[in-house]
Amino acid sequence: MSGKMKVVLKDKPGVGAVLAERDIPKIGPNDVLVKVLATSICGTDYHIYSWDEWSQKRIKPPRVMGHEFAGEVVEVGSNVKSVKVGDIVSAETHIVCGVCPLCTTGNAHICVNTKILGVDTDGTFAEYVAIPESNAWVNDKDVPVELLSIQEPLGNAVHTVLAGEIIGKSIAVVGCGPIGLMAVAVAKAASASKVIAIEVNEYRIELAKKMGADVVINPIKENVVDRVLEETSGYGVDVVAEMSGNVMAIQQAFKYIKLGGRMSLLGIPSKNVELDLANDIIFKGITIQGIVGRRMYNTWHQVKGLLASGNLNLEPIITHKLPLEEFEKGMELMKSGNCGKVVLYPNK
Amino acid sequence: MSGKMKVVLKDKPGVGAVLAERDIPKIGPNDVLVKVLATSICGTDYHIYSWDEWSQKRIKPPRVMGHEFAGEVVEVGSNVKSVKVGDIVSAETHIVCGVCPLCTTGNAHICVNTKILGVDTDGTFAEYVAIPESNAWVNDKDVPVELLSIQEPLGNAVHTVLAGEIIGKSIAVVGCGPIGLMAVAVAKAASASKVIAIEVNEYRIELAKKMGADVVINPIKENVVDRVLEETSGYGVDVVAEMSGNVMAIQQAFKYIKLGGRMSLLGIPSKNVELDLANDIIFKGITIQGIVGRRMYNTWHQVKGLLASGNLNLEPIITHKLPLEEFEKGMELMKSGNCGKVVLYPNK
Amino acid sequence: MSGKMKVVLKDKPGVGAVLAERDIPKIGPNDVLVKVLATSICGTDYHIYSWDEWSQKRIKPPRVMGHEFAGEVVEVGSNVKSVKVGDIVSAETHIVCGVCPLCTTGNAHICVNTKILGVDTDGTFAEYVAIPESNAWVNDKDVPVELLSIQEPLGNAVHTVLAGEIIGKSIAVVGCGPIGLMAVAVAKAASASKVIAIEVNEYRIELAKKMGADVVINPIKENVVDRVLEETSGYGVDVVAEMSGNVMAIQQAFKYIKLGGRMSLLGIPSKNVELDLANDIIFKGITIQGIVGRRMYNTWHQVKGLLASGNLNLEPIITHKLPLEEFEKGMELMKSGNCGKVVLYPNK
Amino acid sequence: MSGKMKVVLKDKPGVGAVLAERDIPKIGPNDVLVKVLATSICGTDYHIYSWDEWSQKRIKPPRVMGHEFAGEVVEVGSNVKSVKVGDIVSAETHIVCGVCPLCTTGNAHICVNTKILGVDTDGTFAEYVAIPESNAWVNDKDVPVELLSIQEPLGNAVHTVLAGEIIGKSIAVVGCGPIGLMAVAVAKAASASKVIAIEVNEYRIELAKKMGADVVINPIKENVVDRVLEETSGYGVDVVAEMSGNVMAIQQAFKYIKLGGRMSLLGIPSKNVELDLANDIIFKGITIQGIVGRRMYNTWHQVKGLLASGNLNLEPIITHKLPLEEFEKGMELMKSGNCGKVVLYPNK
Repeated sequence: MSGKMKVVLKDKPGVGAVLAERDIPKIGPNDVLVKVLATSICGTDYHIYSWDEWSQKRIKPPRVMGHEFAGEVVEVGSNVKSVKVGDIVSAETHIVCGVCPLCTTGNAHICVNTKILGVDTDGTFAEYVAIPESNAWVNDKDVPVELLSIQEPLGNAVHTVLAGEIIGKSIAVVGCGPIGLMAVAVAKAASASKVIAIEVNEYRIELAKKMGADVVINPIKENVVDRVLEETSGYGVDVVAEMSGNVMAIQQAFKYIKLGGRMSLLGIPSKNVELDLANDIIFKGITIQGIVGRRMYNTWHQVKGLLASGNLNLEPIITHKLPLEEFEKGMELMKSGNCGKVVLYPNK
Repeated sequence: MSGKMKVVLKDKPGVGAVLAERDIPKIGPNDVLVKVLATSICGTDYHIYSWDEWSQKRIKPPRVMGHEFAGEVVEVGSNVKSVKVGDIVSAETHIVCGVCPLCTTGNAHICVNTKILGVDTDGTFAEYVAIPESNAWVNDKDVPVELLSIQEPLGNAVHTVLAGEIIGKSIAVVGCGPIGLMAVAVAKAASASKVIAIEVNEYRIELAKKMGADVVINPIKENVVDRVLEETSGYGVDVVAEMSGNVMAIQQAFKYIKLGGRMSLLGIPSKNVELDLANDIIFKGITIQGIVGRRMYNTWHQVKGLLASGNLNLEPIITHKLPLEEFEKGMELMKSGNCGKVVLYPNK
Repeated sequence: MSGKMKVVLKDKPGVGAVLAERDIPKIGPNDVLVKVLATSICGTDYHIYSWDEWSQKRIKPPRVMGHEFAGEVVEVGSNVKSVKVGDIVSAETHIVCGVCPLCTTGNAHICVNTKILGVDTDGTFAEYVAIPESNAWVNDKDVPVELLSIQEPLGNAVHTVLAGEIIGKSIAVVGCGPIGLMAVAVAKAASASKVIAIEVNEYRIELAKKMGADVVINPIKENVVDRVLEETSGYGVDVVAEMSGNVMAIQQAFKYIKLGGRMSLLGIPSKNVELDLANDIIFKGITIQGIVGRRMYNTWHQVKGLLASGNLNLEPIITHKLPLEEFEKGMELMKSGNCGKVVLYPNK
Repeated sequence: MSGKMKVVLKDKPGVGAVLAERDIPKIGPNDVLVKVLATSICGTDYHIYSWDEWSQKRIKPPRVMGHEFAGEVVEVGSNVKSVKVGDIVSAETHIVCGVCPLCTTGNAHICVNTKILGVDTDGTFAEYVAIPESNAWVNDKDVPVELLSIQEPLGNAVHTVLAGEIIGKSIAVVGCGPIGLMAVAVAKAASASKVIAIEVNEYRIELAKKMGADVVINPIKENVVDRVLEETSGYGVDVVAEMSGNVMAIQQAFKYIKLGGRMSLLGIPSKNVELDLANDIIFKGITIQGIVGRRMYNTWHQVKGLLASGNLNLEPIITHKLPLEEFEKGMELMKSGNCGKVVLYPNK
């Protein structure tokens, strides 16, 4: 396939991005070409757009942005076996080496040779995208493309919430950005005994309720530690899903987690965190897990299974749907925090 | 407390039981006395009533029958710390030694020194029952007593379904007696990707649908193996919860379980089962688990958490409510198979 | 690289094999060419040699036999990244698809699209062999090539013994063919509390003692069940590693396994096995695991780590070393059972 | 039994302790009376002796000190079933409630109602001690009493090292006090691929070598991070057993632990620790575990099994044997750090 396509391009260092025209990508023998039906904006996309410190080190413009998506396969390379034209696919964004000691022990999600779609290679804010067969995930066709496009952040939420026991356990989801909100839905679907969401933004507090949180606590208005203990007969929560990266929120979480509890950390703090290891971790017998990405591909199978169960309440999370051309409006929404997921449509 | 109470008594060897009057039990320093609010009929109770081979060996009449129940604590022994008068309790029926190598490694549910309430000691088909503090389970007061009374068989279902991964996995529940039916509800609450119930009795097929089964297969009318494979893209189910004890059903299950799958066996076959270990277990990389009782008390905590989640659809399972005096009608229902759980009320 | 090489060839259907000359294999862009330094005879090789029922269905002569080996890489394909000329490698014999639901969930060892080196493709009883990069395992150079050549059956033993808890647990290794003997060494290295080997062949009984078995039982001379119970304070063994495939041995194992124990089945019974599921599995709370192949590549990493620990007593298992030309003598040894591993040298 | 006995008594607030005479304890119906054959000095005993901040808050003199021991049962209470006169027992020091949500889910070691022998009740630096049956651990009689007396700290080491996978994995043991030294022996017995000990005290560096450490690093003399990476092909260690409580040592450990690794924390830092959660935990996918006490009684069974395996090299750890009367000399040794375990004999 050849021709031109429209894309959202990080054309040069600095704030912003432009709508541009590029050649439709050529695929190699192990790749597939996908017509993008829906692509959602990730926090990472906003970081690149606003050109934060991390982006300045990592991104080499020009780069087509975006990586969360669902699309239709329109062409496959000569070696491709598991994907065919017409399939509706999404992509695991981590493109890994496959041969290092991490990849060969079920830890590909932390492969040190990882490249990231839309960061290190051209992405999905485009009419078409080329991805390796090994990163293509074939979807059930009866799920709406909006939900399929958010499977990567949903996978983060699933990876975090299901990183230990959850059925019948109480959980605090700390921070209700989009992944936190999805974590609320996942915990509800997994029949957590009680889902406590912690968030300061009123828009997202309302969304957390819609996603099914049993209790929502605003730390600005309430003493979080007291309230969580009160909601859990004084024992504290069995599980903390830390999605905020906020230093104080993390420190508080150690005060209301139950003895023997599990704390799964996904949110990225921007500075060091001082912890009382003796009283908050060792004597309490806590387990802490650093969570990154999605297990390849166990998490994707879990996501597919959860979508198939019909128990996952994701509708409220898709708050905005825009044509690709209005990506700047999407970025503004991301900045404000007054949104769930923003989905762009390049071919509509 | 003293006085007389009415009970259902297995008064002598042979078929049947009688309504009788007995002294209200005296409690020791480590016991609690409970006023029985609801007590449900277990398959084991019916075995004792109909005086099957197992009962003839195990039961020493006279014996007050029954063990599934919920009631109000009316008196506690002098050493009792964790239960108080007014608490609504149920009981773990297995009274274990606490000191053997099984009890001291988290395997009390298979303690070889186990005594069983209503089998080896006087039971709950009575206005009052005495149980050891260590076997009393304090309930949330806002759950209906009918549901509290069925926590033991529910615990069997939970122990079976949650004996391995289930969230987002497909499961076949083989045999829809009351425990199988509850296993359907547990699997649904745990967001299994697809719950396939297998049952021959039309009354129970209808109940399985009400409990939330996505697919119900009647082996008399359909080829079970073909149908399960068809429902699972040809791979077979991830999990089998075997609740039937039926030899042919078990053998079939090995043909439709997925490679690497888990088969959890709770149903008790009455004779030996011939298995093709090479092709059905070893080459398929299957794991088989013998399941008995409930983990003490991990399973009880899971049951409490699942009840609290609000996701457990148990209403349809309570099909009959009778005064204690009508226990014979209850036994007839058990014999017919045309029932879910039958609950008796000794104090109403 | 080009030229001729000598090989052991299954040249036609029927008993036996011949020494023959073949072209040195050409490699593709994802393959490596290896000069074979040591190659050991597997039970499977003997099955092919003696042309048993399974071989008649599976093998399409002419086929170069053999798959257990260690060798030096002499050439690598253009895409190969993780292996270089001069590396000492062995191979995972299972060549899998990489994209099916089993491969993408850490279960590649039971991929249904598996091809086997030396069975479905030309093997290692040869001066040179070509293998895919993804199946090459780079060895530590300070381990003797004989031990490196037996890593596949050692991997079977490791996969079986380490399929659950073993440190400080008692274990019965049932059947002391080469993999059973290695299982004894693995269990000793893992500090099992007591290693009980069960075997009828006197030659192998002596080998089992040399490998470190604490107790060796000959079922012809002793009542196995009584003796195992006696050796385990009446509780039975925590773990059974079933390597015999013998029906009676399997049935006995269920009588001397501890309640809550683990039975890991690797030996392949040639006929169905009748089991008392109720008393031997369900009431005992046993877990049974079908074990096949090696986890890719977790088991290989475990093997490498165990070799590095210096605790693995493997010396006694290499009982015979022969030039490739004497492969028929090796096959006779395999037939007799009076051997551990027989290693062939194609380049010496 | 009645009469007087000699004890080491913390007679009043302040530094030191005295040799005193006390009545032999009377036992209740659920207790056993034990003649102490060997009792070793724990770091906690030294804290009480030197009257540190923690002791000032916790200890109510007069109190008989000591809790690590082995002795012979000389009398049992009327309800006691699992222990008999003549048994050689040790004690789990944590006396727990048995009924809280932690005790009933296999987490008794972090029961909030825990009392500690020799801290909250009279201890084992005495000719006789009374302990509850439920805390008595019956030993194999063929193990020397010195080794039996150190099973509690050995249990700490076992709990830490076996809190995740260890067979064939590399491990750094940080801090070689007695528990760290025993962790070295446990890791060796478990066939860790490489055991790296990190310690500054030259006496203990020598002991670490005797216990079997493959590598010993003195952070005063070497760059620990560089050296560990060099010893592990640049990947870092799979497991860190943190036994030092030293802030800088903990921070360094996060730099040389492998991606996806496990850090098990037993050493107690006396102040807060600043951590880079983003780079050292989240992006690395690390798991951190707070470890306290011993699992009741899984860890004790593991200890028994490891002692039975014959693989546990503990001889070097018993560096000093003294009559009870010389307890002050023992305390001086503890203060100097120039010792392994110091064992006292009250009845010799």
